[in-house]
Amino acid sequence: MAIDREKFPPLYRTVAANDAGLESHSYVPDGLDVLTSHPLNDAPGANPEQFIGLALSTCLNATLEAIEERRDLPHSSQVHTIVEMARDTRGFQFYLTAEVKIPGVDHETALAMVDLAERRCPVAKLIGDNDNVVVKLVTEFSAATPVEG
Amino acid sequence: MAIDREKFPPLYRTVAANDAGLESHSYVPDGLDVLTSHPLNDAPGANPEQFIGLALSTCLNATLEAIEERRDLPHSSQVHTIVEMARDTRGFQFYLTAEVKIPGVDHETALAMVDLAERRCPVAKLIGDNDNVVVKLVTEFSAATPVEG
Repeated sequence: MAIDREKFPPLYRTVAANDAGLESHSYVPDGLDVLTSHPLNDAPGANPEQFIGLALSTCLNATLEAIEERRDLPHSSQVHTIVEMARDTRGFQFYLTAEVKIPGVDHETALAMVDLAERRCPVAKLIGDNDNVVVKLVTEFSAATPVEG
Repeated sequence: MAIDREKFPPLYRTVAANDAGLESHSYVPDGLDVLTSHPLNDAPGANPEQFIGLALSTCLNATLEAIEERRDLPHSSQVHTIVEMARDTRGFQFYLTAEVKIPGVDHETALAMVDLAERRCPVAKLIGDNDNVVVKLVTEFSAATPVEG
């Protein structure tokens, strides 16, 4: 199962950094620079939960867009990933639910597209086998209200 | 191994969305809103590679910061995650190398801290078992130059 990396050299390389911890900022040299803060305080700032949710939503929807293009379908897919953080017996866990809406096609076609996207999207390849990660087709997105403190 | 989620209700919930595909923007409702673009074009914008790198760097360094605090050490850890994208027999793969620098402690202590952080950080728990993901202690960060097109 190991991939022959010599045969497939990198097409793209980037760096994402955090130097000062959670109450600081995370950045890509010469690129995105984002204020960060702990998810449970009121300070403005993004957090790891949001970054991994953005990774999955963007990657899955980019993959769906490519599938739509290949099938000559107009782009109608949307992906909203709900990320929950909870305690565990040791430390914390993140739980991801990627809700996919494809209003432009019938249910059967949409299901097949989600299944294919999950197998193609590189972020889903990294985390999709995890029990904490669910990708599902929906007709309406969940409300996903904040947890009351 | 399944986690009893009833016993550990969510402490935090957020949503991360992409509606219009890779050449658009990804956002957290009432939060971060980031221009996105394909990693291989010159348009400004972040991409899934950067989002997942930011997730791992921020989460690992937040975990290291907590470990430093618990040991009454000053914060000195930094995490730079190199993300590479390459073709595969089917589609694409992402490869992550999280380089961790902890200049404030001796090598042995730093190694033990990285090992603990890898087991505690929720993002590492999600992706760390994957063969494409490496977390390692370094004394200097790699140059990680862009791939020449």
